[in-house]
Amino acid sequence: MIDMRSDTLTKPSEEMREVMRTAIVGDDCYGEDESVNNLEDYCKELFEVEGALFVPSGTMANQIAIKAQVEEGNEIITEANYHINFYESASTAILSRAVLNCVRKKDGIINKGDVEELINSKPRGPLYSKPQLVTIENTINYYQGKTFPIETIKSLYNYTREIGISLHMDGARLFNAHIATGVPLKEYARNVDSLSVCFAKGLGAPYGSMLMGSEDFIQSARALRKQFGGGLHQIGMYAAAAQYALDYHLIKIKKDHQLTKEMAVLLNEIPEISINVESIETNMIFININSLTNNTNEFLRLCEEYGLLLFPWLPGLVRIVINRHISREDIYKASEIIKTVVKKLSRSVVYV
Amino acid sequence: MIDMRSDTLTKPSEEMREVMRTAIVGDDCYGEDESVNNLEDYCKELFEVEGALFVPSGTMANQIAIKAQVEEGNEIITEANYHINFYESASTAILSRAVLNCVRKKDGIINKGDVEELINSKPRGPLYSKPQLVTIENTINYYQGKTFPIETIKSLYNYTREIGISLHMDGARLFNAHIATGVPLKEYARNVDSLSVCFAKGLGAPYGSMLMGSEDFIQSARALRKQFGGGLHQIGMYAAAAQYALDYHLIKIKKDHQLTKEMAVLLNEIPEISINVESIETNMIFININSLTNNTNEFLRLCEEYGLLLFPWLPGLVRIVINRHISREDIYKASEIIKTVVKKLSRSVVYV
Amino acid sequence: MIDMRSDTLTKPSEEMREVMRTAIVGDDCYGEDESVNNLEDYCKELFEVEGALFVPSGTMANQIAIKAQVEEGNEIITEANYHINFYESASTAILSRAVLNCVRKKDGIINKGDVEELINSKPRGPLYSKPQLVTIENTINYYQGKTFPIETIKSLYNYTREIGISLHMDGARLFNAHIATGVPLKEYARNVDSLSVCFAKGLGAPYGSMLMGSEDFIQSARALRKQFGGGLHQIGMYAAAAQYALDYHLIKIKKDHQLTKEMAVLLNEIPEISINVESIETNMIFININSLTNNTNEFLRLCEEYGLLLFPWLPGLVRIVINRHISREDIYKASEIIKTVVKKLSRSVVYV
Amino acid sequence: MIDMRSDTLTKPSEEMREVMRTAIVGDDCYGEDESVNNLEDYCKELFEVEGALFVPSGTMANQIAIKAQVEEGNEIITEANYHINFYESASTAILSRAVLNCVRKKDGIINKGDVEELINSKPRGPLYSKPQLVTIENTINYYQGKTFPIETIKSLYNYTREIGISLHMDGARLFNAHIATGVPLKEYARNVDSLSVCFAKGLGAPYGSMLMGSEDFIQSARALRKQFGGGLHQIGMYAAAAQYALDYHLIKIKKDHQLTKEMAVLLNEIPEISINVESIETNMIFININSLTNNTNEFLRLCEEYGLLLFPWLPGLVRIVINRHISREDIYKASEIIKTVVKKLSRSVVYV
Repeated sequence: MIDMRSDTLTKPSEEMREVMRTAIVGDDCYGEDESVNNLEDYCKELFEVEGALFVPSGTMANQIAIKAQVEEGNEIITEANYHINFYESASTAILSRAVLNCVRKKDGIINKGDVEELINSKPRGPLYSKPQLVTIENTINYYQGKTFPIETIKSLYNYTREIGISLHMDGARLFNAHIATGVPLKEYARNVDSLSVCFAKGLGAPYGSMLMGSEDFIQSARALRKQFGGGLHQIGMYAAAAQYALDYHLIKIKKDHQLTKEMAVLLNEIPEISINVESIETNMIFININSLTNNTNEFLRLCEEYGLLLFPWLPGLVRIVINRHISREDIYKASEIIKTVVKKLSRSVVYV
Repeated sequence: MIDMRSDTLTKPSEEMREVMRTAIVGDDCYGEDESVNNLEDYCKELFEVEGALFVPSGTMANQIAIKAQVEEGNEIITEANYHINFYESASTAILSRAVLNCVRKKDGIINKGDVEELINSKPRGPLYSKPQLVTIENTINYYQGKTFPIETIKSLYNYTREIGISLHMDGARLFNAHIATGVPLKEYARNVDSLSVCFAKGLGAPYGSMLMGSEDFIQSARALRKQFGGGLHQIGMYAAAAQYALDYHLIKIKKDHQLTKEMAVLLNEIPEISINVESIETNMIFININSLTNNTNEFLRLCEEYGLLLFPWLPGLVRIVINRHISREDIYKASEIIKTVVKKLSRSVVYV
Repeated sequence: MIDMRSDTLTKPSEEMREVMRTAIVGDDCYGEDESVNNLEDYCKELFEVEGALFVPSGTMANQIAIKAQVEEGNEIITEANYHINFYESASTAILSRAVLNCVRKKDGIINKGDVEELINSKPRGPLYSKPQLVTIENTINYYQGKTFPIETIKSLYNYTREIGISLHMDGARLFNAHIATGVPLKEYARNVDSLSVCFAKGLGAPYGSMLMGSEDFIQSARALRKQFGGGLHQIGMYAAAAQYALDYHLIKIKKDHQLTKEMAVLLNEIPEISINVESIETNMIFININSLTNNTNEFLRLCEEYGLLLFPWLPGLVRIVINRHISREDIYKASEIIKTVVKKLSRSVVYV
Repeated sequence: MIDMRSDTLTKPSEEMREVMRTAIVGDDCYGEDESVNNLEDYCKELFEVEGALFVPSGTMANQIAIKAQVEEGNEIITEANYHINFYESASTAILSRAVLNCVRKKDGIINKGDVEELINSKPRGPLYSKPQLVTIENTINYYQGKTFPIETIKSLYNYTREIGISLHMDGARLFNAHIATGVPLKEYARNVDSLSVCFAKGLGAPYGSMLMGSEDFIQSARALRKQFGGGLHQIGMYAAAAQYALDYHLIKIKKDHQLTKEMAVLLNEIPEISINVESIETNMIFININSLTNNTNEFLRLCEEYGLLLFPWLPGLVRIVINRHISREDIYKASEIIKTVVKKLSRSVVYV
């Protein structure tokens, strides 16, 4: 079975497991887990940030970043399809009582003008909701792993600082963006108030995200992590795995991106499927199957029958993700399977 | 001074005051205020609804309707410019921890297709935010008092019932819609799960809204009103005023609408101002002054200097509202004042 | 029917109604209701406070005071039987997400030592709930209208200021305390950070509370009142009624207290009822009927049958409240009724 | 350094680490982590429950149990010193908007009568906070690891079922209770609606809690875990560690209890310290040092200087916890150190 559902599905290698086995641990609730502390320190240097906090998940990283920077009743300016709204709107409402004020952009990139427009689209003043945070996502999952241009981030950050609100980057796949664009990690970090990165996606660690920002921010974040139930004990083994992934897997993400492009070219050869190969920047391809079937699950079931797992994004939209377990051979096999399934479905469409 | 800022600014007449003076009252916290009970009973008949609850304000009516029908973390589908999002997003987030999932429509009318699209635009399932309520506004303040077509409401209601979610109508200005369209009040009520109407707008009562719906809904609403601090004692005098307004003012709203149209025609004669007179349906006109000045306050200050008060809606956008205190003479005077101010500002624009 | 259920049940007199009829009003949402502004200004002078805000109810006053002074997750130190916990715990949890940390005192008076003990009874620090507000009630409803000693308030206030937390007084019946003790209203106000008073209790106005404190506090309170749905339009008529009550009814509260004591003496003559007459300070008497019946409703039903309405406080506990509609004759009649009912119930107890 | 601060401080042994190294993992967000699934299945059998969910921490387990069983504004009946109130009151307020209605018991055990009294101590009905959950803790941290009598639990459960509310057991240290009392784990589980156990305390695993209850309950819990940011990926290594701890460490808890009793006897020989040795049931001793010093930190600093780490519980109160790393030799050394420190402090007390 070839599994292209997500990059969160990778499993630790023997080498990583051995590193975990021998990791020094302690009680992180007491600040005494050396592997956690080392990883936090390492990230502080790598990203050139004042503070870093190891948290269980990307969702918890985002939710802490929101709660630490948005008072209840106040606004987060973001794009409707970023993870924070698309998947996390319930969490945001429940944990932070914050308002999600969203724009929808064709290209998925919100810029200074969009933020300005959203801010000016509602009455402001002491009686009303106040914008306090802009969030961006990099790479953007919904827009098939698109990178967020550093120049747009810089211009956003100039603007948010000017008007006194914060800028958060959900960098669940920032390592992909970094590898794809060559923009240094610290260059990203320098142009936001807070950011999160996830070790359990393309990087291939089994667990964990790092939340980063100023010392003050991280102090608040530490209290919120505890309140959300994310204060853990000997979690250092997973910190050691994340460190290993940073040391040995980061550079290998390149290969995922290369294979993704190759697969896009292969899929594009299927007449019923149209992919803008130029738009593929990192490790994802979205295919629209609306013209083939109105039953996404049937499509997925057929793929699975032939040995390929894909992810149902939305009705009619299927996500393909290349992760470090996927080989060039898998790419060819998977493309063939999709071709076969598409044919099968087209035929039945014709019959009907 | 001619005051065209809002229809909430009207003051009770001598007759209404006399009715209030002699109103029978009791402690409404004990359900013993006869004037309140009478008004609630009257509205139950007028709107043909099972339950009615007299609440202090339109905001409280909406917030109770939301909280009674949306569990925390779940979604309200609405238009970005309806009062519930435009003015009340902080309340909604704080009181209900609900998610506002908004579309922006050029014409301000959300229909079944819009709701469907918003529902399908996000992943659904037990882990995610669940749509539970659609809210509409009638008339729509942001769209200069536009009426919401009854056929669209019916189609929405068919759809929301089909998929098992609720439909709420913020009828702060439903009396204006009723008078403008001739659609019976009960026809509106029959096609939603809950609705609110406000007595303190075009109707000219000094206070209060009526929240209506099923008996179960009103029972929840009663508890929420208490929790929000809206359980009051001898409030019957204001209930009596509202009853008087229903009896004697309702029909007079026609005149407001007529005068509003006349004023639109007058304003349209000012070359720098362009109003689509056809679009004026009730008691509001919005004028865009962006081409005249980027200082809305300066425009308003000048109007005030000449004896006219208008309402700053958003930067560059000014709202004119005709209420029962405004006469035809006022219309002419006010139009002249605006003409004068526009000239003054145009001249200065030219000079610059 | 003699109605001794509450002091919220009083109805406006002809004089008060006439004052209301002629009251100048305006839209309080725009800060333009002269009667409201006058009442707020009057209270600022009367209580010597910087800011005052007219709010619809005592519950809203308390809930705003809490939300303005306690961040979510933080603590309110109070007594379990004060209104804020006894009746308003749901509101406090929902609106403010605050923690109620309560002590139970035999005499109902919390002092500096109690507060200190509650603060020291839990771990403190950045990860935990932080005490931010102490609330007291004066007079204390649960302790049959007991007055809160000014010396205890002073000592509490010294302490709360020293440790940097706020002190709020729920003065729903502060006018009763003032009349009973002779302590000037401003003396109470000077020794707390925020306080509320209610016009619709012993004072006999039909509506409204005044929330008072510093200018900053009142500014936050104004925004919260709006968010809770308590921003109202021409509410000045009720402000005028409150002003009239302050001018003409305040002094008459003395009579209520005198009658309450007389009634306590009368009731004490009933062998089955034991009241500590010394403990009656204002306008309430609580009678414990546990030895007579385990069916409080039966007791109340019998009283009603004989022409007397009383309030079921808790199972076995009945509240008697004297308000301005109650005459000395009523006191005698009511005591006779209770005597009769007690006899009836005692006899049935004997038979069993 | 002898570390007696907590039983959360233990580190995985070589054997446990080896088990972790070879654990089968998968993405638990997709329900595909075999080690997690196995552990959940194992616990379902061990506790004879319908559903089990592996969660990151005891706090998250409790907070999910609360949120799944208490609607906002409603009440949790508990003891003021149980972890849920003592440490988690902020989380409970923020995440669940629930009211903590607490009693303080000298012996720390709440029984049916206490719950009944708390329920009857406040007005009930549609307008007020409704009790929905009773929570107990077993063993009780604050009461030096006291076990909660199974007969009391049974009687509580009979009562809560009768009145239709839920009973939750915070079993962070239930394995200690089980070992100390011999009551089967399933006997505990059978007498509550939900329970949590922690693997990272006396059991000596590095991570994780198991939340258990009905299938419906666990389904809600799964969604809440996601919303709180506790949905994780390849977490199976820690599930494998927990399984190992269940298999090999559970029985060894006996030794901890034995050593704790021995240490209590040794400490009791110090004249300035008085411990009721009979009250020591599991792995904790609390010593009151108020008579020695009013500076708890000074006491702890001295102990540390001599090679012993203890936990500051509250001002004047120090917690000693025996965990699986502590040997009999450590017990003797630690008691000597405390004796030395006590002498040192007593002397200085005398001199002053």
